[in-house]
Amino acid sequence: MSTSLRIDEMLVTPVACPDPPLLNHHGIHEPFFLRAIVRLRTADGIEGVGEGPGGGLYVQQLRAAAQHVVGASAYHIEALRVLVDDARVFSTIEVALLDLIGKATGRPVYDLLGGPARRRVPFSAYLFYKQAGEDEWGQALTPEELVKQAERFANRCGMTVFKVKGGVLEPDAEVATVKLIRERFGPRAGLRIDPNAAWSVETSIRVAEKLRDTDLEYLEDPTEGIEGMSQVAAHTPIPLSTNMCVTAFEHVPQAFRARSIQVVLGDHHMWGGLTAFRHLGVTCKTLGWGLSQHSNSHLGISFAAMIHAGAAIPNLIYASDTHYPWNAASDVVRETDLFHFRDGRIDLWDSPGLGVTIDEDRLALAADAYEQRKAKSLARDDVSAMRERNPDWLPHMPKW
Amino acid sequence: MSTSLRIDEMLVTPVACPDPPLLNHHGIHEPFFLRAIVRLRTADGIEGVGEGPGGGLYVQQLRAAAQHVVGASAYHIEALRVLVDDARVFSTIEVALLDLIGKATGRPVYDLLGGPARRRVPFSAYLFYKQAGEDEWGQALTPEELVKQAERFANRCGMTVFKVKGGVLEPDAEVATVKLIRERFGPRAGLRIDPNAAWSVETSIRVAEKLRDTDLEYLEDPTEGIEGMSQVAAHTPIPLSTNMCVTAFEHVPQAFRARSIQVVLGDHHMWGGLTAFRHLGVTCKTLGWGLSQHSNSHLGISFAAMIHAGAAIPNLIYASDTHYPWNAASDVVRETDLFHFRDGRIDLWDSPGLGVTIDEDRLALAADAYEQRKAKSLARDDVSAMRERNPDWLPHMPKW
Repeated sequence: MSTSLRIDEMLVTPVACPDPPLLNHHGIHEPFFLRAIVRLRTADGIEGVGEGPGGGLYVQQLRAAAQHVVGASAYHIEALRVLVDDARVFSTIEVALLDLIGKATGRPVYDLLGGPARRRVPFSAYLFYKQAGEDEWGQALTPEELVKQAERFANRCGMTVFKVKGGVLEPDAEVATVKLIRERFGPRAGLRIDPNAAWSVETSIRVAEKLRDTDLEYLEDPTEGIEGMSQVAAHTPIPLSTNMCVTAFEHVPQAFRARSIQVVLGDHHMWGGLTAFRHLGVTCKTLGWGLSQHSNSHLGISFAAMIHAGAAIPNLIYASDTHYPWNAASDVVRETDLFHFRDGRIDLWDSPGLGVTIDEDRLALAADAYEQRKAKSLARDDVSAMRERNPDWLPHMPKW
Repeated sequence: MSTSLRIDEMLVTPVACPDPPLLNHHGIHEPFFLRAIVRLRTADGIEGVGEGPGGGLYVQQLRAAAQHVVGASAYHIEALRVLVDDARVFSTIEVALLDLIGKATGRPVYDLLGGPARRRVPFSAYLFYKQAGEDEWGQALTPEELVKQAERFANRCGMTVFKVKGGVLEPDAEVATVKLIRERFGPRAGLRIDPNAAWSVETSIRVAEKLRDTDLEYLEDPTEGIEGMSQVAAHTPIPLSTNMCVTAFEHVPQAFRARSIQVVLGDHHMWGGLTAFRHLGVTCKTLGWGLSQHSNSHLGISFAAMIHAGAAIPNLIYASDTHYPWNAASDVVRETDLFHFRDGRIDLWDSPGLGVTIDEDRLALAADAYEQRKAKSLARDDVSAMRERNPDWLPHMPKW
């Protein structure tokens, strides 16, 4: 009935996949985004997969962790957590462990996290100001162009929640963008803006005042740090959310005492895996904080994991962010038909584990792409990508 | 490989088992303590067991919960949590669900909680002032008699951590007891005292000052309430612990802001089961609080669950409390040989689920005992038990 679920082999495959030229506060997405794929195999041939942030440094850390993982039982998650130590490295392994347990027991990962709280997982349309590129999305450098992008998300995916990646245009132009989206999609649309702390405390308070009647779900990371956020929070009724000043359990006490935030954007990649994200859910509920889900450029293994999190964590009631529509074309899993948005939601599936498996051909292509640009690929670097286009670019913080 | 693990049947058996006349702040243990045994069965004959606080009201609540449990999947823990709602009722069911999952997958429950952080789970000697009774422990109404009791625990079970159930004698006599135990067992013994909030804030501060050089692990619930504890905490370097003012997640924010406590005594029976206790562990770690484990009179199913919790929760580094040595003789499980204390610790076992099964004969006896005293058994009532001996007894709080 049971197998030992001892890990026999751990494979780490760094990959590089095409990324559109999306703009943010500190630069522009490079032409390729980097991920690392982890495959854990047992002696009896069960494979568990995980996906995390890539790049040379991260891949080295992952490979170093194999010494602890190989030989361990997939069930001994907490022992491996303290051995691997770095939450971001461990998270990728943890997802593969849960996938393995799920496959061995015939259970979807969401059942290993307590069972589904919902069977349709809502996602937001993640809107980016962007340059024109190889992609099909075109340029979006004005409020009007971003509204066109939002319409495309609404038409294709049925999304009714819109998140603007800010910190790119002058704050007043970003305010105009948000107001235009509200006008276009009406009072029932969910709206968020995230300038990635590009604004000073004073600018944040001033901009929040201008957004006051726009009925935002939340204002994400207007300014930097627990103290700065606390000052902004004291001056606006708009809930503040973060995935920058509270990104680990050790940031929680200070942020709670300082009343800095009302919503945490959790991310299993950052917090130590899906079980840790599940714990974060309880922490947020306990402290009276809301919970949403953060995203970075990702492929289908991470997307599956995010969907399982979105299904299993009861108080994750905000629509989750995802970059998937930006990166779907380069996915390395076979089951991409699972990721069909209907009314902005993904329907849950019942297959064991994450429910996705590797497409070997596509993985090989993405791995080749990584090898070809290896020298440049120590870590994600939006700043250098921008300086290639504009040598004077400096990512000053705050920008405004 | 997998079964649906759909619950086909839920049996609730209320039991009454002999209890020694242990004294506490509000009275004396009745001659019988009450528990409820839950058995969940699947169509293919797997049985999961749980044990919780008993008595007629609790048993009614448990039986009412069966409408939600029967027909559900054992994996859908979070759905059942919100349907059953009451954390104390749900906890008993949750343990049985985990036992069922463990048995179905061939895994011990601690593996379902993240794997063992330790393979020998430490317990404290739970010392009670007591009257002479049918039991073999004799009377303990003076500091000297309690030291004798402690010696017996040390000799039989190898325990090196001692917890005094206080709130019974005058505070100065209880201080004398603690100091005598320190003298007898030396500087390496762990010491705690728990007057169950029988002291006023002023008395607590005065007693804490007298205990200042006794090197307590913690002072448990000297006084009542988050506010009272906060006042005491501000005046003593002795860590304060609680299982009275923080007994649910919703008590956490206020206690944290008020700096009322340093240690939570978690209890899966109170917090919503083993997964909830596991979440409490993360909450405590996040907030910089220590974690210990609380006990009420219990049988072997609960003891097994407490041992699994003690094994799996990484930051549960204090020795756990247990009443088991007081109640071992009336246990209703077959595997009582698992509960052998060596150096005050219980060695972990590898069998699936909790690793215990019902002894039908012993359960039938305990169930008969419950039926015979049913009319008196709506809930635990130490006050009435004391008033039978002393009709003038009133459980005033604070007592001193």
